Amino acid sequence: MSTVIEQSEAILVAGRWRQAAASSYFHSSNPATCDELPEKYPVSSWSDCEEVLTAAADAAEQLRALPVAQIAEFLEAYAQQIEANVDELAQIANAETALPVKPRLADVEIPRTIGQLRQAAQAARSSSWAQPVIDTKLNIRSCYEAIGPVCVFGPNNFPFAFGSVSGGDFAAAIASGNPVIGKANTSHPGTTKKLAELALAATSQSGLPPATVQLIYRLSHDDGAKLVSDFRVGAIGYTGSRRAGLALKSAADASGKPIYLELSSVNPVVLLPGALQQRGSEIVDEFLTSALMGTGQFCTNPGLVLALRGEATDRFVDAVAERFESAPPGTLLSTAVQSSLTKAIETLTAAGADLVCGGQAIAGKCSVTNTLLKVAASKFISDPEVFQTEAFGNASLVVVADTVDELASVIRSLEGNLTGCLYSASDGADDDAYAQLAPLLVAGVGRLLNDKMPTGVAVSPAMNHGGPYPSTGHPGFTAVGIPASIWRFGKLTCYDGVRAERLPALLQDKNPTGDTWRCVDLNWTTADVG
Amino acid sequence: MSTVIEQSEAILVAGRWRQAAASSYFHSSNPATCDELPEKYPVSSWSDCEEVLTAAADAAEQLRALPVAQIAEFLEAYAQQIEANVDELAQIANAETALPVKPRLADVEIPRTIGQLRQAAQAARSSSWAQPVIDTKLNIRSCYEAIGPVCVFGPNNFPFAFGSVSGGDFAAAIASGNPVIGKANTSHPGTTKKLAELALAATSQSGLPPATVQLIYRLSHDDGAKLVSDFRVGAIGYTGSRRAGLALKSAADASGKPIYLELSSVNPVVLLPGALQQRGSEIVDEFLTSALMGTGQFCTNPGLVLALRGEATDRFVDAVAERFESAPPGTLLSTAVQSSLTKAIETLTAAGADLVCGGQAIAGKCSVTNTLLKVAASKFISDPEVFQTEAFGNASLVVVADTVDELASVIRSLEGNLTGCLYSASDGADDDAYAQLAPLLVAGVGRLLNDKMPTGVAVSPAMNHGGPYPSTGHPGFTAVGIPASIWRFGKLTCYDGVRAERLPALLQDKNPTGDTWRCVDLNWTTADVG
Repeated sequence: MSTVIEQSEAILVAGRWRQAAASSYFHSSNPATCDELPEKYPVSSWSDCEEVLTAAADAAEQLRALPVAQIAEFLEAYAQQIEANVDELAQIANAETALPVKPRLADVEIPRTIGQLRQAAQAARSSSWAQPVIDTKLNIRSCYEAIGPVCVFGPNNFPFAFGSVSGGDFAAAIASGNPVIGKANTSHPGTTKKLAELALAATSQSGLPPATVQLIYRLSHDDGAKLVSDFRVGAIGYTGSRRAGLALKSAADASGKPIYLELSSVNPVVLLPGALQQRGSEIVDEFLTSALMGTGQFCTNPGLVLALRGEATDRFVDAVAERFESAPPGTLLSTAVQSSLTKAIETLTAAGADLVCGGQAIAGKCSVTNTLLKVAASKFISDPEVFQTEAFGNASLVVVADTVDELASVIRSLEGNLTGCLYSASDGADDDAYAQLAPLLVAGVGRLLNDKMPTGVAVSPAMNHGGPYPSTGHPGFTAVGIPASIWRFGKLTCYDGVRAERLPALLQDKNPTGDTWRCVDLNWTTADVG
Repeated sequence: MSTVIEQSEAILVAGRWRQAAASSYFHSSNPATCDELPEKYPVSSWSDCEEVLTAAADAAEQLRALPVAQIAEFLEAYAQQIEANVDELAQIANAETALPVKPRLADVEIPRTIGQLRQAAQAARSSSWAQPVIDTKLNIRSCYEAIGPVCVFGPNNFPFAFGSVSGGDFAAAIASGNPVIGKANTSHPGTTKKLAELALAATSQSGLPPATVQLIYRLSHDDGAKLVSDFRVGAIGYTGSRRAGLALKSAADASGKPIYLELSSVNPVVLLPGALQQRGSEIVDEFLTSALMGTGQFCTNPGLVLALRGEATDRFVDAVAERFESAPPGTLLSTAVQSSLTKAIETLTAAGADLVCGGQAIAGKCSVTNTLLKVAASKFISDPEVFQTEAFGNASLVVVADTVDELASVIRSLEGNLTGCLYSASDGADDDAYAQLAPLLVAGVGRLLNDKMPTGVAVSPAMNHGGPYPSTGHPGFTAVGIPASIWRFGKLTCYDGVRAERLPALLQDKNPTGDTWRCVDLNWTTADVG
């Protein structure tokens, strides 16, 4: 492929900011105005990837030889760098995403990102994430170790907390000792570039190899597939659309590379009649907040509501419609999101869903009026695939069933989802329905909630931000929650009869930190062995 | 497809032995005589799979509702059934595989199988495998739960310990609460049938759904792909050839089904010169035992030896060749193994390896003379893919390098393997070479050994019988070692704000057994919460 070197924003390769070998260029836009932003970003040719991969493989070998404390120091220094630049980062991200500087970016998402990096630093330091297992009788010892360079593809909706060089996958990959090859989301390349600058400064502060963090902005689909299946890659983290994610999965799978995906999810919310009777107006409030938060562009947005036919449900639908109509529609992340949302709404109505309110793209703005759709359960069940079309943005579909059995049939027809919620009365009125529906719902989701909406993914060790396919690629892993998110990027390694002095510190008789949890002869302990 | 019902061995569907809807039939052979055995087995049509899948999905729902103690009772009852039928089982397996009744089958493999089932029973009872994680502050709680029906494809070389209705994958799938759809290895269908009879009796003794264990013998390739990607399937365990395994992986990956593969591995053994000087003749003994055990048909057979050019290596090669020539060649598992072994030897010699001894198929027997090949490291590096052709059986390739750097290059050129061994002197003479080579070797293997051969896969919680692709499909999982092998068949499930009385027993404040290990607020404990 012939490449043209024009002046454009630099990529970060092996510690050096340099012009890309670009096959073409792109601009991001400000969704608040629909105007193109002035910065020009390169679409990298394969030669950029080749160089990035070689540097990452070298960095991976170097990182393996460093004490974990140094990795923790990097994560802490980087958190500090972000903390010192919150205002600038929030401004850049606001221009690229139209997400409000306050409270969303400066007060919520950036602090969350900083917190994640600090938790990851603690996890790296303690190394408990590596699940050391010691069999003293047979002298067999195992733990998770760095898997190799990790490619991270971040999504459009969280430029920091899920960003390719700052978010949860990044923090987990680094904490497990792997260099990261960041592929910026093309809707906020400038934000990602600024973050990579801060990360590079932090590598130098902490003495990590400069290629611990590298950044490219965009690739052809073919080069993306080639990148994730390259022999130098250890694993891949991807958050984004189903189509692009499954294309990468297919390439990674074929070359045996673990790829951790977080794809679309409609997040069913079941509103049982007793709950709607008891506190219908509060549920309307909770639903509204959750459904319109971030203009509905959350992975755990409640896109699907299931309820029984009746007055309480009618009241819920009417109240939500009224509130949807009076709330000003938020700005979507891009014109691409706007058009995919209107297309999804058209798909749903064409299949027979009724448009209760909204459904209008607003000309000259990245906005769609707040949208509520409704469909009978019998119709839903007749074509469940089409009615599960994800309408990413401020739109939700209410499915109305005649009986609890019919609700059960709707739930059985659902694809895998990140979350499932069940609202039930506190007086026992819904208990039979709960007992029937909860086992069906939980089988298809990663996280079951009671009496609350799915948005809000706490960074807790017990969190599962994952779920059955196609919400992710494997139902055993979470993208949020330390330490569990970390061992996605670990390779299980066993030392069988290896001489004591040659064992990794983590597997020697002496507990290397004094507080690393290890499973010794089937008992978890922080004590030394013997 | 038209199906013909002729009288043949029955398949086990939903607790009933019945004639298959067969598209054709096959016989297994006695490899000791090359004679076909009289029993006729059906190749199932898709309608058999359909029925098996529906029954498995029902059984999965029923199993979820049962106390785990009942699952443990089943595993124990089944172990007991096998124990009471050792002689008959060993006779049947001997006729199908030519593996010696004693010691191999009756004294080693069957007792190992019984031990695995009992360890799995203990693991089910304690439920520590499920890794319950509790965040008391946020009331978020998670653990692994049954993933759904598991298809198990067993290999030819371990009719019991890795068998589709008796082996490690089976025990792990059941212990995690999943029904198993067993696909018999077609080289020992009669053994598998007898095992399924005992398993069915054990389901009835313990009150499990009869469809907890089902059995079919053979499928078309298309139906195999359709089976592993069916929506009712939770996961797949496969042990066997790379080609068949990767075909199933491709189908499973495309439908998002976790598939755990254990494929080919050449298991490099590095013999450093100081070790050969110090105890060359013992190393010859150890290599011989490991290389010829089970006629070399072990997943961890030492198929590749790496050594430095010199007298000690020459003596090793000469001594092994002499012993290989004087040892009577064992019987291989089938004529198919015999022909793939001779073909692999031809591939290696055609690429330029020298045949030191052996290489002859023995007419009228499933045997090949014990084979040793040799190649210079420089030649190996020039075409590493072809020189890593797995010669499954009693054949090994010695790679001779001029320098430690060249050994390093050979190791860097290796695909993923289950194991890697390093023999080094006890007096420090090899320490520099060890320090250079061990990090390279360990990066590409699941298990690193010092001063011993790779065969012998202890059933230890610290074991890793896994490794980087293509030795398996994912470097984070082990097929042997309880509890780690079990959570391959678990789905991570999070309960967020779920009311206390609705939580699974494992996640309630009270520790359900008093000795289940749970991670509460980042500390592992067997205590109750609060």
